[in-house]
Amino acid sequence: MLVIMSTDSTEKQIQRAKDRISEMGYSSHTVSWHDHYAIGVTGNKGKEDRIYLEGLPGVLKVVTLSKPYKLASREVQPENSVYRIGSATFGDGNVVMIAGPCAVESEEQTLRITEQVAQRGAQMLRGGAYKPRTSPYAFQGLGEPGLEILATASEKNGLPVVSEVVDPGTAGLVAQYTDMLQIGTRNMQNFILLKEVGRTGKPVLLKRGMSATLEETLMSAEYLMSNGAREVVICERGVRTFASHARNTLDISIIPALKKISHLPIIVDPSHSSGHRYSVIPHSLAGIGAGADGLIVDVHDRPDEALCDGPQALSPEQFSELMDVSGKVCAALGKTIGTEAT
Amino acid sequence: MLVIMSTDSTEKQIQRAKDRISEMGYSSHTVSWHDHYAIGVTGNKGKEDRIYLEGLPGVLKVVTLSKPYKLASREVQPENSVYRIGSATFGDGNVVMIAGPCAVESEEQTLRITEQVAQRGAQMLRGGAYKPRTSPYAFQGLGEPGLEILATASEKNGLPVVSEVVDPGTAGLVAQYTDMLQIGTRNMQNFILLKEVGRTGKPVLLKRGMSATLEETLMSAEYLMSNGAREVVICERGVRTFASHARNTLDISIIPALKKISHLPIIVDPSHSSGHRYSVIPHSLAGIGAGADGLIVDVHDRPDEALCDGPQALSPEQFSELMDVSGKVCAALGKTIGTEAT
Amino acid sequence: MLVIMSTDSTEKQIQRAKDRISEMGYSSHTVSWHDHYAIGVTGNKGKEDRIYLEGLPGVLKVVTLSKPYKLASREVQPENSVYRIGSATFGDGNVVMIAGPCAVESEEQTLRITEQVAQRGAQMLRGGAYKPRTSPYAFQGLGEPGLEILATASEKNGLPVVSEVVDPGTAGLVAQYTDMLQIGTRNMQNFILLKEVGRTGKPVLLKRGMSATLEETLMSAEYLMSNGAREVVICERGVRTFASHARNTLDISIIPALKKISHLPIIVDPSHSSGHRYSVIPHSLAGIGAGADGLIVDVHDRPDEALCDGPQALSPEQFSELMDVSGKVCAALGKTIGTEAT
Amino acid sequence: MLVIMSTDSTEKQIQRAKDRISEMGYSSHTVSWHDHYAIGVTGNKGKEDRIYLEGLPGVLKVVTLSKPYKLASREVQPENSVYRIGSATFGDGNVVMIAGPCAVESEEQTLRITEQVAQRGAQMLRGGAYKPRTSPYAFQGLGEPGLEILATASEKNGLPVVSEVVDPGTAGLVAQYTDMLQIGTRNMQNFILLKEVGRTGKPVLLKRGMSATLEETLMSAEYLMSNGAREVVICERGVRTFASHARNTLDISIIPALKKISHLPIIVDPSHSSGHRYSVIPHSLAGIGAGADGLIVDVHDRPDEALCDGPQALSPEQFSELMDVSGKVCAALGKTIGTEAT
Repeated sequence: MLVIMSTDSTEKQIQRAKDRISEMGYSSHTVSWHDHYAIGVTGNKGKEDRIYLEGLPGVLKVVTLSKPYKLASREVQPENSVYRIGSATFGDGNVVMIAGPCAVESEEQTLRITEQVAQRGAQMLRGGAYKPRTSPYAFQGLGEPGLEILATASEKNGLPVVSEVVDPGTAGLVAQYTDMLQIGTRNMQNFILLKEVGRTGKPVLLKRGMSATLEETLMSAEYLMSNGAREVVICERGVRTFASHARNTLDISIIPALKKISHLPIIVDPSHSSGHRYSVIPHSLAGIGAGADGLIVDVHDRPDEALCDGPQALSPEQFSELMDVSGKVCAALGKTIGTEAT
Repeated sequence: MLVIMSTDSTEKQIQRAKDRISEMGYSSHTVSWHDHYAIGVTGNKGKEDRIYLEGLPGVLKVVTLSKPYKLASREVQPENSVYRIGSATFGDGNVVMIAGPCAVESEEQTLRITEQVAQRGAQMLRGGAYKPRTSPYAFQGLGEPGLEILATASEKNGLPVVSEVVDPGTAGLVAQYTDMLQIGTRNMQNFILLKEVGRTGKPVLLKRGMSATLEETLMSAEYLMSNGAREVVICERGVRTFASHARNTLDISIIPALKKISHLPIIVDPSHSSGHRYSVIPHSLAGIGAGADGLIVDVHDRPDEALCDGPQALSPEQFSELMDVSGKVCAALGKTIGTEAT
Repeated sequence: MLVIMSTDSTEKQIQRAKDRISEMGYSSHTVSWHDHYAIGVTGNKGKEDRIYLEGLPGVLKVVTLSKPYKLASREVQPENSVYRIGSATFGDGNVVMIAGPCAVESEEQTLRITEQVAQRGAQMLRGGAYKPRTSPYAFQGLGEPGLEILATASEKNGLPVVSEVVDPGTAGLVAQYTDMLQIGTRNMQNFILLKEVGRTGKPVLLKRGMSATLEETLMSAEYLMSNGAREVVICERGVRTFASHARNTLDISIIPALKKISHLPIIVDPSHSSGHRYSVIPHSLAGIGAGADGLIVDVHDRPDEALCDGPQALSPEQFSELMDVSGKVCAALGKTIGTEAT
Repeated sequence: MLVIMSTDSTEKQIQRAKDRISEMGYSSHTVSWHDHYAIGVTGNKGKEDRIYLEGLPGVLKVVTLSKPYKLASREVQPENSVYRIGSATFGDGNVVMIAGPCAVESEEQTLRITEQVAQRGAQMLRGGAYKPRTSPYAFQGLGEPGLEILATASEKNGLPVVSEVVDPGTAGLVAQYTDMLQIGTRNMQNFILLKEVGRTGKPVLLKRGMSATLEETLMSAEYLMSNGAREVVICERGVRTFASHARNTLDISIIPALKKISHLPIIVDPSHSSGHRYSVIPHSLAGIGAGADGLIVDVHDRPDEALCDGPQALSPEQFSELMDVSGKVCAALGKTIGTEAT
């Protein structure tokens, strides 16, 4: 941390700042150039120290020099993380395709859709047994029976499965039935849940919060990792802005920005960003173009009957089209959908 | 719900829309005026139906006619809710002052601050025993010993106390020690937590999420109320925008907007919106001017040593100044700070 | 417009609403279904009428049924607009590449860069002679001598040229020297400028405002078109949000959304959205993936010396790389960079 | 400017940064503390230099130490600016009330409303003769005849008048008829207009842009001041966010933040922030509570017939109520509405 004094600060103010730093238990070192004077601080803990020191008289600005996240940073691990989860590989430069129904509604529906997405080349199954819903009156998921269905569908089709955890009390349960645990957007800063999910040691898909900064997203990854998760994948699913022409504003700029400072893989959820079937493929290709390590899409073979997010679900035919065009774009970029060339 | 067709929609498209509504199990009724044609729908369940029908060919727009929240709406209860929680009364037209440390750090600190805010006229104590922190490496609160300290401070000074719940598993525990449970900003859509906190039957202070709409905020209140909470107070604490001159952008416009459609009281947290001591009083008076039913402020007598959010905490002297000027503004508006005239 | 009454509205309130509509000079027609009652209105003029009627007692909601833009809408012109401007064709399904320096600094610099981008396959030259700058103390462009330089560079290399107009008084002048006039982000709702630029009858590149909605963007296109412009191209260059990891948040979702309702071409400016050279190519490919009709990029062969936006300018070598990879992605999508296959 | 190197930067990288600074024509001075190394730079010009240097290898962060605005800053003028414009005084600690119709529609309407607001205690008249409208098909104002009407109404009632300029070509004309020139929200960064308006030397009311930062707002004030305006008043009128319960999100936090760094007065426009009559008074009192130097409100005695923004205009009776309650709140804060005590 560097405490930069105003050019018109008094000696007394400088002394007071040094005294306070010392009282806070940190060591300080003063430097000066031209008409500027600054105090280097070591041993400090973070944001609050910064804001506090910024409030002292005569202080112009306080600059933090170390990043608040460690395990997720490229400083700790310069090379990209690569995770193999069954037939899906995240972070090796190719694009993982995760597909399935938004919610598990029945065994029949889940088996039917899983088979369809598997045949068309998906590498991982998605499906929700516990659904966080804005309304207390909406379908909240099948619970454990839904997990059993997912496990069956996963096994039958040879696809690993990712499913959302909403309750710290059921993290272990979901971990028994699935290969990867998902933290939903509304729970990105549910720190109790992050800790419990981290403790399972399972791979985690962490969805960015609706208005989370890049740093906050990495801090949540840090919660997972510092509690035991070794494989964390970030998911961009659109953020909240003034714009209303899409359900959320897909922020593709986070992909290169994250890759610059973190070794974690990042995928895109074009279904939740677009909110409408007609724009899922454009959002998908934008994600691949920006460098995403994968996609996670809603597929439903009877979208009119879907109990959750039907309007944004692709039909199996549309999913085929997505696989086809994504495969071509990947090939143009020297990549494949999935690690084995299609 | 009203499904309005494009003026150039075909008879076939109209028929398809009607068929789909019927297949969804809803009854429909067609109306027309000028060159417009529309289908009234009853029995529908919500947003997904709307988005789904909007995707059908020939449909111009789908308009929802009923609100998704019920218990929180003025339709269900036209008059303002008024709650008495010990010496604090919410919603009677006056302004409740809630004050205390951001985090409970020790018994001595908590007793000292509680005494100071009580003497200066606060009607309720605030203090966190469980702190949701962005960084896994930051102070996370004292836990149950912190609750014991709060209960002692509360009893000694005759102030009811509000404290945050972060874990569904400890909702009951926090309820034993305190008079009102707080749901934090980052947990506003942690639906599992909302359910558990609702089930305690205790009064709840629900903080608006960082980018929550008015409707989403009321839907979270609905989660609490439909699970057993009868007394829910909303708290505006600033939202996330592009602006960086304050920690958050205090959205005072939600106060009259909420009062128009809901009977729930709403208070303002000027400490978290401003993030800096120098602007806490301006934010407070803005809240009162906009019609807030109360304020919740951080107070610390040694803000330099605070383990949490020190830079925004008022000193006891500044709290006195806030009480003084708030009291005058309230009087100008025919209100008081607290229900008994000061 | 449709005025929907609350289910608990009184007959008197319904009558008052009808009377007001009649006094406003509009004709009305009442319809009802289930327990709902609504008034269809024709002849009304827009937003203010809507907000006004919404304020009447007993009114639940007012729904507008016609779009405020006409000339830009697919209702007026269902097929995509296609414009040929010299060697550049907008809207034919391929991707136009516009490249050049942010600002014209000297004849030598402009000729040098133009030659380089022309050789590498750009179809259009960009360059600013008038620069809108946030600071009154920053370089504001060369003015008319800059236009002369652009005209020379354009002619020598056979590339049409687009340049920004910032002053209604110089719209005619810029039109003499260039092939397409640009409206900058900060002037998207400078209606006087839109009118003057429209009156030149020249093709226009209209950059979306920093927080402009899709509808507002099309309304600005409407200003241009209703004043004489026949060829308007929209440009997405990132919007302002809470996120700070990129200069602006590139909103690729506007591309499919605009194409659904408008026949106008839309291109992407990856230089201004990313703000940093390292992410220009990812933003470019995201734009192409989402369906953009073109790209406009800053290129500078000595970015360290650029008088304007140097940090985001590609070097000629990086521009070659962009052409190469964009060409491959276009080919994967059955498109070309420029109308003739490269 | 201070260029801070990464702790793992190489000597070669440090040398390269120094060389570049020197080539840019700036002098540099190196400092170090603990394991940190930094280069102080003087003579640099601004944002682009910063972003450019930040892109060099081995650079961790570049910190700017001087503010880009000068004339508007407290560094140049520590004490508050106070301007007397006829019966209105801005910046003396009291609250100026500016009222009148959104648009001048006719002489009769303007005289009628002016008389009413004057009698009820307004100190300044507002009214638009040139209206910037989102739609090219909406009423655009009466032009010069509207200015004549405003001048007549102003003279008859002894109120100075503020009116908007939308065209650099008519800045001089508007200056002849009025006492203060207004720059509208959509033109806050129309730099040509700012220059022309600044050159008139008239007092200016500068409305904050829809998504303008505090710094950008002050930079636009700087354009005005560096071109000749000596009296600039900032106006907060709500910013664009995700929230839709008000027309714009009134950002009261900019008031204390601006006052901390600038000597310019700042007022609030509660009519445009709320967009609905029912919330104009709450927004007004929030502004006063936050420390605003004045209010500017739409008043119309026949709001149903208003050609512009009728739904948000107060009736004369509501304006009386606003004067009454604002006067009481001001008194509670030791202020008055207008400089003479009411």
